[in-house]
Amino acid sequence: MGDLPGYRGASLKALSQQDVSVGDIILVKAKGGEFKGSLLPRYEYADDKHIVLKLDNGYNVGIEVSNIQSISKISEGKKPTFTPPPLPKIDNSLPKVSILGTGGTIASRIDYRTGAVHPAFSAEELYSVIPELAKCAQIETEAVFNIYSENMTPSNWTKLAEACVKKAANVDGIVIGHGTDTMAYTAAALSFALHGIGIPVVLVGSQRSTDRPSSDAAINMISAVTFAVRSPVSGVYVAMHAGTDDGSVAVHLGTKVRKNHTSRRDAFESVNISPVAYVKDQKIELKAKLPARKGAKFEARTKFEEKVALVKFYPGFDPLLIDALVKNGYKGIVLEGTGLGHVSTKCYDAIQKATSNEILVAMTSQCIWGRVRMTVYSTGRELLNLGVIPLADMLPETALVKMMWVLANFKYGEQKSMLQRNISGEINERSPLVRRPA
Amino acid sequence: MGDLPGYRGASLKALSQQDVSVGDIILVKAKGGEFKGSLLPRYEYADDKHIVLKLDNGYNVGIEVSNIQSISKISEGKKPTFTPPPLPKIDNSLPKVSILGTGGTIASRIDYRTGAVHPAFSAEELYSVIPELAKCAQIETEAVFNIYSENMTPSNWTKLAEACVKKAANVDGIVIGHGTDTMAYTAAALSFALHGIGIPVVLVGSQRSTDRPSSDAAINMISAVTFAVRSPVSGVYVAMHAGTDDGSVAVHLGTKVRKNHTSRRDAFESVNISPVAYVKDQKIELKAKLPARKGAKFEARTKFEEKVALVKFYPGFDPLLIDALVKNGYKGIVLEGTGLGHVSTKCYDAIQKATSNEILVAMTSQCIWGRVRMTVYSTGRELLNLGVIPLADMLPETALVKMMWVLANFKYGEQKSMLQRNISGEINERSPLVRRPA
Repeated sequence: MGDLPGYRGASLKALSQQDVSVGDIILVKAKGGEFKGSLLPRYEYADDKHIVLKLDNGYNVGIEVSNIQSISKISEGKKPTFTPPPLPKIDNSLPKVSILGTGGTIASRIDYRTGAVHPAFSAEELYSVIPELAKCAQIETEAVFNIYSENMTPSNWTKLAEACVKKAANVDGIVIGHGTDTMAYTAAALSFALHGIGIPVVLVGSQRSTDRPSSDAAINMISAVTFAVRSPVSGVYVAMHAGTDDGSVAVHLGTKVRKNHTSRRDAFESVNISPVAYVKDQKIELKAKLPARKGAKFEARTKFEEKVALVKFYPGFDPLLIDALVKNGYKGIVLEGTGLGHVSTKCYDAIQKATSNEILVAMTSQCIWGRVRMTVYSTGRELLNLGVIPLADMLPETALVKMMWVLANFKYGEQKSMLQRNISGEINERSPLVRRPA
Repeated sequence: MGDLPGYRGASLKALSQQDVSVGDIILVKAKGGEFKGSLLPRYEYADDKHIVLKLDNGYNVGIEVSNIQSISKISEGKKPTFTPPPLPKIDNSLPKVSILGTGGTIASRIDYRTGAVHPAFSAEELYSVIPELAKCAQIETEAVFNIYSENMTPSNWTKLAEACVKKAANVDGIVIGHGTDTMAYTAAALSFALHGIGIPVVLVGSQRSTDRPSSDAAINMISAVTFAVRSPVSGVYVAMHAGTDDGSVAVHLGTKVRKNHTSRRDAFESVNISPVAYVKDQKIELKAKLPARKGAKFEARTKFEEKVALVKFYPGFDPLLIDALVKNGYKGIVLEGTGLGHVSTKCYDAIQKATSNEILVAMTSQCIWGRVRMTVYSTGRELLNLGVIPLADMLPETALVKMMWVLANFKYGEQKSMLQRNISGEINERSPLVRRPA
């Protein structure tokens, strides 16, 4: 079988019956006409019902497999390769940014000759894909790892935090390219692990890959780099396309951001606060008082305890799930209760067993917006009596990450108070009724 | 100790040292003055730092416990009792509504003489609390049960559905008062159990109890009754205060509604669609094509399988939670994955074990808005190969309820296709990018 990246299912079957590879010049006879051209690779998310040719006139054509009568090879093509264009002249007086890769679509680029998507990760390649960056910052890049973000683990957070610590003294800002699925969890993790860092650390992703006309990869990356090198602030942020259509990018606090849509470009939202800044046309508009830049020295606490679970309550919830965690040596449980922070009375015994085993049990709300208030109803007060720790307006996901961090970095006697103390903006005592940016 | 409803902590301690009860005339000497009056009960959500008297001049005064020097009883008072005012004249030509109670603040009323909150649940009492209802409908009431909504279980849904079936033939609409914590789950449950019912069934709650000036109880109840008796539609809905300040109440489809704030009056939102109607000043504005009213006959399927779990995925998630469910005889698992419907590769074995044991495993997204698309990335395709059932744009909470319903009412061979078939608006193939009402 030839080299047929991206093809699968019906289209792969059709092509693999012939000895053709991507790049070959082939002739396809189909219902409605004949097509001669160079076989293009397919992107991973493409369907399996078409094969795609680049015709001599430069146009790409997709041919439905079910219409194809025959495929034949005319000549072998050159394998698609990517030669980076000449490096633009970089101004040595520009601020420095370190761009760290973890995987995800933001670091991909398209080869316009073949249509192939390549991971673009050298500084040279990034400049070639997003020429605006050459005027904005001197870039150095490092691929810390390359995984789908759903496979990120707390030990990946540690590795990433340590990479940031290494870079922090020598650059004006750090940008981290990250898959969007778990970007908000990683942002929360770094907000705690890198608490006190003197420069901005900006996570950035893309909801659409760079080869789609609607891609937000370039504008998100330019804005993240702009914020990382030119904003007067420090701390951990997420920069993603804002809700408006005017090309502005919202900057969210790393502990207060959530992916609230599976596919929209403006999927990321600040919860219980507004975005702390916007970047548009490389201009930064700060919307909140944020920690200033400061010296390079700080004490990073990069460890995370993995034996912590986030458990969502629902009608019919069986406390056996809590029991299973206790039995398996868990050290912390974050509950996602209903409303102001409730679970059914059926859970009380299991919770008591957990807390009396010195397992931290904390409460957040599945409402997502708002805050738990456990003194209002008797259910809340009873849970407080069982030792459940109320976590104010903290996002459930942030609470999970914070508990992992607190358990790994503080003694038992300090853990409860650290959980409830605001460290990196995760608890906001004011504006209790803010729901979302207007 | 006397009868001291609502008092707790410091205020209860201060009062219980004397032999006083609510309703007694007492004399309180405190820093700053002496107060003589009738001891009022406290509401459940009140603080524990004040005792409250109704003075002779009719004003209520709260006295801080820490300022109190002495408390003495002057005379025993009449216990607070509530005598409903005379029943308003009800027009026999008005449409009929059955109002079912389950617990929750909507059915409470305040006794203005004593300040006590009473559950108001006879028709007479409802008319007296909300006089507008007398011009709107002939009311009959029934308390099906009286529990905090966090203690609702699938068997409560069955009982409630059966109560609706009994009423349906004799009334123009049904209104159900429900605590807000799990109202959306119950709405989804009834949407399936009562599929095909010929009249509107409207769930209604209140984010603030009736004794607070900002209470939404009356306007929500009037609007729910209006929609139940006067709208031309059938099916299950939730009527709650809309986001605007103009007193309009949004009507949400029972399968597409979520409590998205712990405390705001407009906490309930339609997800992936817009509200299907608004009620303002007892006028109904329909915004969607909904099933028309029809005959009283329909086949209710009111059972729910309790051995179904909703499991939220997160970085560091340990598949032991899935294993525990399999071991404990679970019949279905709804995953709340990341993004388009992903979990880490670490979960594959546990999922495979579940599906090969004929346990239904389905996928929803923790993004809440949007829809799972499991053919886009390899992770999604691998999960499909393991037998995971993608549930389009269904809310995770609705998916849980639907799986409980499908497992209890259909044979194994039909269950997967029933899950993926739109029954009551829970799957919306259109408007994939709607996030929320404008």
